Amino acid sequence: MRILISNDDGVQADGIRVLAEVLSEVAEVVVVAPDRQRSAAGHGITLHKPLYVEEMTIGNGIRAYGVSGTPADCVKFGVNQILRDEHPDLVVSGINAGSNLGSDVMYSGTVSAAIEGAIQGIPSIAVSQLGVKDFDYTAAAKFTAQLAREVLKNGLMPETVLNVNVPQVAASEIRGVQVTTLGTRRYHNEFEERINPRGVSYYWLAGGLKDIEAEPESDIKAVRDGYISVSPVHFDFTNRQLMETLKAWQLD
Amino acid sequence: MRILISNDDGVQADGIRVLAEVLSEVAEVVVVAPDRQRSAAGHGITLHKPLYVEEMTIGNGIRAYGVSGTPADCVKFGVNQILRDEHPDLVVSGINAGSNLGSDVMYSGTVSAAIEGAIQGIPSIAVSQLGVKDFDYTAAAKFTAQLAREVLKNGLMPETVLNVNVPQVAASEIRGVQVTTLGTRRYHNEFEERINPRGVSYYWLAGGLKDIEAEPESDIKAVRDGYISVSPVHFDFTNRQLMETLKAWQLD
Repeated sequence: MRILISNDDGVQADGIRVLAEVLSEVAEVVVVAPDRQRSAAGHGITLHKPLYVEEMTIGNGIRAYGVSGTPADCVKFGVNQILRDEHPDLVVSGINAGSNLGSDVMYSGTVSAAIEGAIQGIPSIAVSQLGVKDFDYTAAAKFTAQLAREVLKNGLMPETVLNVNVPQVAASEIRGVQVTTLGTRRYHNEFEERINPRGVSYYWLAGGLKDIEAEPESDIKAVRDGYISVSPVHFDFTNRQLMETLKAWQLD
Repeated sequence: MRILISNDDGVQADGIRVLAEVLSEVAEVVVVAPDRQRSAAGHGITLHKPLYVEEMTIGNGIRAYGVSGTPADCVKFGVNQILRDEHPDLVVSGINAGSNLGSDVMYSGTVSAAIEGAIQGIPSIAVSQLGVKDFDYTAAAKFTAQLAREVLKNGLMPETVLNVNVPQVAASEIRGVQVTTLGTRRYHNEFEERINPRGVSYYWLAGGLKDIEAEPESDIKAVRDGYISVSPVHFDFTNRQLMETLKAWQLD
């Protein structure tokens, strides 16, 4: 069995090293990840310029490649170029430094790497560790190894990834695992205006999370309650209910 | 009524100018779009650097802003900064030069601008004109004006956008409108290796579309048959069916 590992924090991030070391006890691992931080990359791919690749080792001698692209590029390139004769059985993206919960998965480079794995027809997992700094990835890595074993044993339905979030508590305080829905996150989308030394305005995206109640069964509630959250995320985007409504509109 | 218009081909693209001119007959229009080509940007947002904005006019004196960000940035910035006291009633993204069909919407900057509109709570439409070059946007613009009127009249359910694709035939040959599902697109994901003048390898994403049969009712089949395709796309990503399966796994 072979696992392709990627992320959006870059090939040199602590989270991917810890993940690769733990997963190397489950299967052969190969790391293909961005050569630098690519957070909030969404599901972008690089069409207008070529990709450069640097081969290296990380951690305890793990085979790794830093790619000058997005997380989705890395998985596409990993599966179709680097591992074209060594097909991976599983793609794992992470461990991200910070949550990827609820509707935020739209913006997540971590989740997009896993989605690209699923697009390539490979079972895929995204893993994020809640927190702001001084991340301890031990519990997340250990859980992901167990989840990887289950996915390799049971498979996963097509066009679906598992999105894992690990709460920001000591490993001994984690209360268990919950299978969850993606909850709703809403932001105060404020922009802060500043003036640069040349007198030109520029704008930072600022503004925090709105404090709305977490839905029962949601990933947001699970991690708040101290559970590891596992959300099955698919990308069957068609809203079939709305199709019937639209057919009654005056469109011709 | 006010319409915020964006795209991923950039504020100077022909498609957005034609769209803005036609929609200005439906409502007040304001264009907020990337200052340059941002195709395949996916749903990326810009967190690590600030945004710059340039005010301008396009076409027949239409108020427009070029923003140094992704399509999703432009809509977020347009709604929350530029139009914070002039709330838009509709977001329209396009007209994209080229299709955004089926599973390709994952990668689409055009669709991501519309999705950001929906995240901001505003009914949203994405519009793409099939073809490769010498685009004629007349039919697409005319249809979008009609669809915009219907959306402004009927509203749209939350967390949903309408994804429109217009076939590459003369306006007189369009056979009508079909409400469709997102079909499946699969690619030969080949990378072409080249060597730069410094002797370093680099890789272009190459490889074409796999010729697989289009599903009945799909957007891919509709445009192939000469119809304008309207797909209702939502982003309720949770796979509830898989939740039950996962609960039986050994995860604790």
